[in-house]
Amino acid sequence: MKISAFTVDDVPMIQKGDDLAKIVADRVTLENEDIVVFASTIVSKAEGRRFLLEDIEPTAEARELAVLNKEDPKFIQYVLDTSTRVLIKHPLLVQTVFGNVCINAGIDRSNTESGYILLLPLDSDRSAREIRDRLKELTGKTVAVIITDTNGRSFREGQIGVAVGCAGIAALHDRRGDVDLFGHELKITIQAITDEVAACANMIMGEADEGTPIAIIRGYKYIKDDRGIKVSYRSDDTDLVRQALAEKIEKEASKTATEKAKKIRSEG
Amino acid sequence: MKISAFTVDDVPMIQKGDDLAKIVADRVTLENEDIVVFASTIVSKAEGRRFLLEDIEPTAEARELAVLNKEDPKFIQYVLDTSTRVLIKHPLLVQTVFGNVCINAGIDRSNTESGYILLLPLDSDRSAREIRDRLKELTGKTVAVIITDTNGRSFREGQIGVAVGCAGIAALHDRRGDVDLFGHELKITIQAITDEVAACANMIMGEADEGTPIAIIRGYKYIKDDRGIKVSYRSDDTDLVRQALAEKIEKEASKTATEKAKKIRSEG
Repeated sequence: MKISAFTVDDVPMIQKGDDLAKIVADRVTLENEDIVVFASTIVSKAEGRRFLLEDIEPTAEARELAVLNKEDPKFIQYVLDTSTRVLIKHPLLVQTVFGNVCINAGIDRSNTESGYILLLPLDSDRSAREIRDRLKELTGKTVAVIITDTNGRSFREGQIGVAVGCAGIAALHDRRGDVDLFGHELKITIQAITDEVAACANMIMGEADEGTPIAIIRGYKYIKDDRGIKVSYRSDDTDLVRQALAEKIEKEASKTATEKAKKIRSEG
Repeated sequence: MKISAFTVDDVPMIQKGDDLAKIVADRVTLENEDIVVFASTIVSKAEGRRFLLEDIEPTAEARELAVLNKEDPKFIQYVLDTSTRVLIKHPLLVQTVFGNVCINAGIDRSNTESGYILLLPLDSDRSAREIRDRLKELTGKTVAVIITDTNGRSFREGQIGVAVGCAGIAALHDRRGDVDLFGHELKITIQAITDEVAACANMIMGEADEGTPIAIIRGYKYIKDDRGIKVSYRSDDTDLVRQALAEKIEKEASKTATEKAKKIRSEG
């Protein structure tokens, strides 16, 4: 198998309302089955997910976490408002309202003007579907679309590109039942294809001032599917790491409560 | 930026003692700065890391974990023998003697004859360096080498390719101090390049009967460095997820011990 991966050149600074599909179609001659990968930052910008840091009032919880993380309480409040659960207080690892688990709810302050923050798209799977449909309309080509973010990992330093939304491509390639070279059934067998594609795209897109937030992967045979990335988010009951983190944070909270109670008693 | 990624065709079944560098050099005209990626299974085979399942005596701990995981106690014993710590009992997530954290210590039974198991290379960074040196000797080209395994992830279903060894390429690209499009300093900025390359390679190598365990990534600009992959393994004291898992497992062990003691007292 041979694939190529390339960035789209001369992508302008994205503003609210920009037509990302058209920006691609004007710059690249797409082929059927191309995978078009967008950094979530530009999808967020096009969708107007930019907010003024000043426009929020931090709660006591946000102030406490802000001290711990040496962060602006207003920034932390945005993180909490886009999260369903805090899993680690510092660094601030949360389960987001979008379903993915990441540091600071994926809120970006780099590549954004001072004083503003950029939230992840409300529904990245939907955003991917819309861009894909629009690409079909503009070019006549049937492609897949992936929206990426960069995430840290357990056990390993550094961040890699991961998918937060996708359309027209199966996030997981379930190979249970396939056989190996010796005819034995495979055991570990669910390949997270869109995350591998996202990592590959992130490798060439860069994070800093390259300004290359769109990449095309060409020549890769993938399974077509419209269930989006959400199928690859572990559920609460099967996620042992999340359970361990939740237990740890509960234990610490009850310890803090006990200490506070002791302090009150001793001071009373 | 444009890169290409392709698998090496007609790789024979690898046997102990095979010269992997020569297998590549005979099939591909390498270029300087190519990244040559090998699935750890074939490196293990070439290094004779295949063992007979029968050749080990399971301990009580292995038998207990085997019941929990519906596994052969002998297989579990090999996992324990290549691990420094159990982090989750089922699925059996361990910290390996090699430094990486993964299910079943990365021991492979697929793509191996029945009755045999395949351990990860003893020192995958060293293996990568040796293959790289040999490629230089055979072709005159200076390349990078990455050895991959496939790993599951916290919070997300499915496995992706990760690096377990590398040579001639910096595992982590530390971009702290770089600026974004608006001239602000980047915040989250350590890119795990070799893991992204590994994911990209794994995407095209496949896991089952494709028999394409070697891939070349061409055209990618990377930082040259010889510190190997080990720099990207989190240390115990900075790894909050590992700490939470270790606490959970200790808590369960002490609970079990208490229950056993109760049972002994009530039966006594």
